[in-house]
Amino acid sequence: MPSSNTIIRITESDNVGIIPQPEGLTEGSVLTDGTILLEAIPMGHKVALSDLRPGDAVIRYGVPIGYVNTFVPRGAWVDAPKMELPEPPDLEEIQLEPGEPPVVEPLTGYTFQGYRNPDGSVGTKNMLGITISVQCVAGMTQYIEKKIREELLPKYPNVDGVVALNHTYGCGIAIDAPAAIIPIRTIRNIVRNPNFGGEVMVIGLGCEKLRPERLLSEESTSSSVLYLQDESFHGFSEMVDGIMATAEQHLQKLNKRRRETCPVSDLVVGMQCGGSDAFSGLTGNPVSGYAADLIVRAGGTVLFSEVTEVRDAIHLLTPRAVDTYVARALVEEMRWYDDYLAINQADRSANPTPGNKRGGLSNVVEKALGSIAKSGTSPIADVLGPGERVRRKGLNFAATPAGDFVCGTLQLAAGMNLHVFITGRGTPYGLSMVPVVKLSSNSKLGNRWHDLIDFDAGPVAFGEKTIEEMGWELFHLLLAVASGQKTVAADRWGLHNELVLFNPGPLT
Amino acid sequence: MPSSNTIIRITESDNVGIIPQPEGLTEGSVLTDGTILLEAIPMGHKVALSDLRPGDAVIRYGVPIGYVNTFVPRGAWVDAPKMELPEPPDLEEIQLEPGEPPVVEPLTGYTFQGYRNPDGSVGTKNMLGITISVQCVAGMTQYIEKKIREELLPKYPNVDGVVALNHTYGCGIAIDAPAAIIPIRTIRNIVRNPNFGGEVMVIGLGCEKLRPERLLSEESTSSSVLYLQDESFHGFSEMVDGIMATAEQHLQKLNKRRRETCPVSDLVVGMQCGGSDAFSGLTGNPVSGYAADLIVRAGGTVLFSEVTEVRDAIHLLTPRAVDTYVARALVEEMRWYDDYLAINQADRSANPTPGNKRGGLSNVVEKALGSIAKSGTSPIADVLGPGERVRRKGLNFAATPAGDFVCGTLQLAAGMNLHVFITGRGTPYGLSMVPVVKLSSNSKLGNRWHDLIDFDAGPVAFGEKTIEEMGWELFHLLLAVASGQKTVAADRWGLHNELVLFNPGPLT
Repeated sequence: MPSSNTIIRITESDNVGIIPQPEGLTEGSVLTDGTILLEAIPMGHKVALSDLRPGDAVIRYGVPIGYVNTFVPRGAWVDAPKMELPEPPDLEEIQLEPGEPPVVEPLTGYTFQGYRNPDGSVGTKNMLGITISVQCVAGMTQYIEKKIREELLPKYPNVDGVVALNHTYGCGIAIDAPAAIIPIRTIRNIVRNPNFGGEVMVIGLGCEKLRPERLLSEESTSSSVLYLQDESFHGFSEMVDGIMATAEQHLQKLNKRRRETCPVSDLVVGMQCGGSDAFSGLTGNPVSGYAADLIVRAGGTVLFSEVTEVRDAIHLLTPRAVDTYVARALVEEMRWYDDYLAINQADRSANPTPGNKRGGLSNVVEKALGSIAKSGTSPIADVLGPGERVRRKGLNFAATPAGDFVCGTLQLAAGMNLHVFITGRGTPYGLSMVPVVKLSSNSKLGNRWHDLIDFDAGPVAFGEKTIEEMGWELFHLLLAVASGQKTVAADRWGLHNELVLFNPGPLT
Repeated sequence: MPSSNTIIRITESDNVGIIPQPEGLTEGSVLTDGTILLEAIPMGHKVALSDLRPGDAVIRYGVPIGYVNTFVPRGAWVDAPKMELPEPPDLEEIQLEPGEPPVVEPLTGYTFQGYRNPDGSVGTKNMLGITISVQCVAGMTQYIEKKIREELLPKYPNVDGVVALNHTYGCGIAIDAPAAIIPIRTIRNIVRNPNFGGEVMVIGLGCEKLRPERLLSEESTSSSVLYLQDESFHGFSEMVDGIMATAEQHLQKLNKRRRETCPVSDLVVGMQCGGSDAFSGLTGNPVSGYAADLIVRAGGTVLFSEVTEVRDAIHLLTPRAVDTYVARALVEEMRWYDDYLAINQADRSANPTPGNKRGGLSNVVEKALGSIAKSGTSPIADVLGPGERVRRKGLNFAATPAGDFVCGTLQLAAGMNLHVFITGRGTPYGLSMVPVVKLSSNSKLGNRWHDLIDFDAGPVAFGEKTIEEMGWELFHLLLAVASGQKTVAADRWGLHNELVLFNPGPLT
């Protein structure tokens, strides 16, 4: 007779439990509550803790994540095909009045070493960013990026790197379409990211729809715009010489930047998950949420995102808004996305992925409830449309699609200077513009991907460590990374993804 | 009194002429027909050759390209604000019956040196292509591409290069949306491009929506699929080792490829224009069209594309279809795009660009009439949906958006092994997968961009050379480039753009 096996239940009312054992549990395994497994169940998947009759709710996180469409006896595997998706919360019926905010003590005394900018923002890296007004020049900026890295950077040791902020927008698009504002403000705001130190360098072509001047901002004190079609350039070599000379002027200024002690309130941390599994909502996301609360208590800014992954939990978020204006803004972002998907003949069931499902996440409701855990418990101070820049400190909902690179790109535009990326299945995600701290939700991945994962939240699954303990560990790691004292795995390998814009408008 | 100045009229019925002089013409200039300029008019722009009253048609290429909304006296500048856009041809009224095809002699005796593949297709380069099933692994393939270039390629001198076929699809998308077929078949067909020699290498993550197996094809004899989440990989270093070992197997086979004499009928030439001006339709496009006719006469395949740039000339194309089936397919592609733009609250007037307008192209009708000139005069043998692969030799309409990189990506998927890119304003366009022959429509650009332009069609503007002469010159250049005997400017500099997929579906 096998010994009793621990499973994970979030609340007392949950009628399913999650199998945390790395190899899953075999048929006949006995759980601590006496349930006997009627079949083998893999890690991360759900077991019925009581008999479920057709139509009965499957309760996880204390709320229905679906309804069984067949009789599921106690001890059976509750997998996706046995579950029907509940209706999403009706946006007309959502509570917009703020609930009672949690009472917390401000957190003081924590600092990091950052690069303070003239506009008051603080960088965690010292990068030369070269943006473009149109994809036509992307081959050129890729060429230039390499040349600057090889020929100029050695002369400017205080500059951490150079990055071509290439994208696929700027022409062949409907620049007057209503949604064009999204990609345009995204490109415009990315180059204002604190890690570029206000040194704005734009390479344009000359005949594109997106005028390079639209990418400059009023407060920018040091910007250059070059057009390849400028008649003063006789051929490629002269363009290269012109761009290199301009880059050098910016590098000279960037090279003077020095790290100084900054309060945690200068951090803007983007939280995102990708390749999630059933552990994400148990370990990685709650640990990140705990760290998020610490940052907010210290006066800092935290972004959480991914509209389709909060849509089914929106009724749990609006009561956390600081006022009805912010609550309404949350609802409006959901409505915009509902419409966007409907116009394009899709709906939220397009999320989750097959990998999510294999990881035990049966549907988008279950995924959403785990996903919002990374927002912690703080009040929601503000809502940003896709590509908008942070206006208020505290916890922000930055509305984005859930795709990792689109979300990361939009969080960069919002002004993120530190990125937390939680994964259960594993992805080699990385950005060169800001440090990405990759966090595994289970130790199986954390151990296997020992040289790609920066922080393993797996120990929470078996009670080896508490969420609180690991939340503090993560908080300290974030300060070390923000200070440049610890290098993340993606930067060690130079594993860096390109920007991906969210362009809801058509191509022409 | 200034001497008489030549201007360009395409047909006797044209009531406007194009100013070909590089510096334009000043007020008071006298044209050969006696017209006196009432104001200065820049190069490429239109002058009224007779008085135009409100509502009168502006005739160029023998057809109305718009209607004046004000009185425009003879000798005045006919620019965009004075013109109203005509209604596009009504798709319900389009003639579907084939017209009389031109009588031409088959062209024999021309060959090139290419890499013949097991499936019968012929490559013009010998490349290792590494495709991906999801953008999550793009950072990894970028890393690997560099490592292969530095560590493996020197051992395989017959291989021209390695390219990571990175894209932004595969997850965070609605894989069941009706339009998902477009990006999926595009990715799938790109790796079947003749220049990759049938050696198909797919890097996947493991949890993505787009299953890597969907990227393989039945006829592929040599394919490998690796998943980064494969449990046999312990960390990044082992993934890298695994991919490098697989790449080496493919390189060994590619290294055995040798060029052999192939008929022109093995060429698949993609024609595209970008950054067009008023000369594009007078010089670059007709010269390319002449070369296109030569290739078709020799049994080869030519692709022309860009739906929004043929939409207004569709009534001139359907009579050239080989049968009513093909004519109907042409109309259906127009209809699909009309709907796509309408759903997204845009229309064809989103094209042209500001640069087109400054170059003298007043609207999309004028642009379209110039654009279709690059299709030559051959019958249209077939119509390909976006991302579909060529089925029939001869002139094909490959439906694509007009954005340069999306169009190029879709022509790569169609099987293009040689690319002709016509530009008037100038763009540094380049692809590493196939040679791109860049052609300037005016010598002002051709001279200034001496090290970026491969062929200047400008001499046609002043009658220094005929379209026929330059068409033959281009044809010979294409054979030399296809044979690897001449290196194009983009390859000399290593100026290469990334793929850009056409995904009409939503992000999730």
